[in-house]
Amino acid sequence: MRGTPHAAQRCLAVPCTIGRGCGVHERSAAAAQEEAMPDTAARVNHRWLLTARPQGAARENDFTWEEVSVDDLADGQVLVRIVYLSLDPTNRVWMNEADSYLPAVPLGTVMRGTGLGVVEESRHPGFAAGDLVQGLLGWQRYHVSDGRGLTRITPLPVPLTAYLGLLGHIGLTAYFGLLDIGKPVAGETLVVSAAAGAVGSLVGQIGKLKGCRVIGVAGSEDKCRWMRDDLGFDSVINYRIENIPEALRRHCPEGIDIYFDNVGGKILEAALDHLALRARIVACGMISQYNGSEAPGGPANLTRLIVHRARMEGFLCYDYADRAMEAFTELAQWMLLGKLHYRVDVVEGLENAPKALNRLFEGTNTGKLLVRVSEEPNFPPQAEAYTSKYLN
Amino acid sequence: MRGTPHAAQRCLAVPCTIGRGCGVHERSAAAAQEEAMPDTAARVNHRWLLTARPQGAARENDFTWEEVSVDDLADGQVLVRIVYLSLDPTNRVWMNEADSYLPAVPLGTVMRGTGLGVVEESRHPGFAAGDLVQGLLGWQRYHVSDGRGLTRITPLPVPLTAYLGLLGHIGLTAYFGLLDIGKPVAGETLVVSAAAGAVGSLVGQIGKLKGCRVIGVAGSEDKCRWMRDDLGFDSVINYRIENIPEALRRHCPEGIDIYFDNVGGKILEAALDHLALRARIVACGMISQYNGSEAPGGPANLTRLIVHRARMEGFLCYDYADRAMEAFTELAQWMLLGKLHYRVDVVEGLENAPKALNRLFEGTNTGKLLVRVSEEPNFPPQAEAYTSKYLN
Repeated sequence: MRGTPHAAQRCLAVPCTIGRGCGVHERSAAAAQEEAMPDTAARVNHRWLLTARPQGAARENDFTWEEVSVDDLADGQVLVRIVYLSLDPTNRVWMNEADSYLPAVPLGTVMRGTGLGVVEESRHPGFAAGDLVQGLLGWQRYHVSDGRGLTRITPLPVPLTAYLGLLGHIGLTAYFGLLDIGKPVAGETLVVSAAAGAVGSLVGQIGKLKGCRVIGVAGSEDKCRWMRDDLGFDSVINYRIENIPEALRRHCPEGIDIYFDNVGGKILEAALDHLALRARIVACGMISQYNGSEAPGGPANLTRLIVHRARMEGFLCYDYADRAMEAFTELAQWMLLGKLHYRVDVVEGLENAPKALNRLFEGTNTGKLLVRVSEEPNFPPQAEAYTSKYLN
Repeated sequence: MRGTPHAAQRCLAVPCTIGRGCGVHERSAAAAQEEAMPDTAARVNHRWLLTARPQGAARENDFTWEEVSVDDLADGQVLVRIVYLSLDPTNRVWMNEADSYLPAVPLGTVMRGTGLGVVEESRHPGFAAGDLVQGLLGWQRYHVSDGRGLTRITPLPVPLTAYLGLLGHIGLTAYFGLLDIGKPVAGETLVVSAAAGAVGSLVGQIGKLKGCRVIGVAGSEDKCRWMRDDLGFDSVINYRIENIPEALRRHCPEGIDIYFDNVGGKILEAALDHLALRARIVACGMISQYNGSEAPGGPANLTRLIVHRARMEGFLCYDYADRAMEAFTELAQWMLLGKLHYRVDVVEGLENAPKALNRLFEGTNTGKLLVRVSEEPNFPPQAEAYTSKYLN
């Protein structure tokens, strides 16, 4: 790999506070030169095929590593070099035999994954070389497409990684999950599980911006410290060492108004037992159930929904695609004003994707988990325009 | 017991189609005379105290039968003779040690129960002898009250039992549960469990009136026949002999838009697996969970709420008290026009209440389960006024 490691969580300021070497606002001359001359010799695609249905945690030998050459483009096609691959709990769900909100990944095909890339070559009228694009690009280095499913990105003065986080599916999930499904009211008590994770950490901060008391549940002292000291959560619970029901009772003396659920299982059951009247449970994810890492079986106390006249509702960020700019505009403003913090955890090299995925289930990632597949392109040309449009 | 057994499900017509002997529209001279001269000698109250927390099904020896004399009324008090006692699944929940939406019934006190009665004596300015009242009157013959929690009933030309059914908590539950929580749209597929029960049979019929395809799930061929032939449900499933997931797939080829859940457990799990996009699960009751009659543990597939962007929401009819007339007006109209059918299953004698309750959990009741505690009073004086007001 080449280039400067990306200081995503450090350089959010306009103007740049890091200066030379900041991967966001400045590129080395060598990197710029390299990009101006893309390698047009025979390209080799590296890719991971899913070749077995994982039992429990996905293991590297559920996948097969393949090197194949990339064919010349046909008319109407576009070639994308993948820069970042997003690793999300939902990847594990897609590996199962059963369809979920998307069909199961067929065995023998490239593992599905959300990615961000740069167009290297285009014979499609809608895309030009140098365009930043996003979509289900797959666990591979190159993606050839007829353009369907590719979304062009308008660059903003934010780190590129933000498009797979705050200004991507993670931001949409946190924003609409909390605001549209959870419907927070100032003064209410919001409990978030996996609260140091990519979605959870945003949810808690948005909750604070909306005037909620926020209690974050996470699995390490480091994460708890981060939530309390940097994110401003009112209380934190380390589920690995604390008694969850007792801690919820202590931190939520008037019950839980909103439980933003990323994990399901035992924490969901404890939250159900401690709901306030007319509580909302935002069913965002149930990571404890995806991997067989917790005994199967749901909460035995769903009758609490009746007792507390509570609502539990599932959603997917994809349903909010047509309202994405509404979220991104507000999220980007908060971010540029320093009101939202986030961390990225970048794993170098596509070859490490299968192993890295399990960190989500072990809780050993520290921030939005990404794989850097190739070097970042030049970025971002339209920062000034955005800044003057949205921040005055 | 004295008086004519009440032909609740037969005489809904105005004018009366039964004639002499109809408990609704005509009283025998003897009964009328008896009522005009209430027995003012020392009254004996019979009552059931809850004296042990049931394990599993409630048994008669969890209760103690008591006979005590009724004291003279103090100023501000009212004496109610209970005519009908309603037996509902929620009675079993109230017997547990844990509080639910109401506190647990304390051991050694009269078992809590919804009842309908007639005021025999009043030293309260808000009530007069002969008034029909409703409330948590308890498993007893006489209820002495300071008036709080008593609701006076304006008699309509319907059977008295209707006030503990269609025009009482059952009607409110079915009406607002389906319309306010389920939000049916014509053409949608509605699945109802315990669909031959008091609430379920109304829900299915209201669903039909709103243009839904209705599938009823019940536990006997007799119940299934009634739902199909008399209530007009589109399909029925006998859960005791059919494979529920397979039957749901067959009867709901495009998935379930609304699942009105009265039972929880395995049927809830099967419904979750077969939801349509943006489905609503109305969490009305989970009778399979109240009694330990099914292994504990909730549905293992709550992630389906996410996959289908579905909502599961609990409610209680009590929350709709201020909108009750809205429901009763429409329900009474439908009833008087012959568009709603219901059955009552009247058990004679307070002494049989503990045993009778278990019929709800065994599914052996055929209609709204009531206990006749004492004879019906004269009834209903204001039928004509109601008819001219609402049915022209």
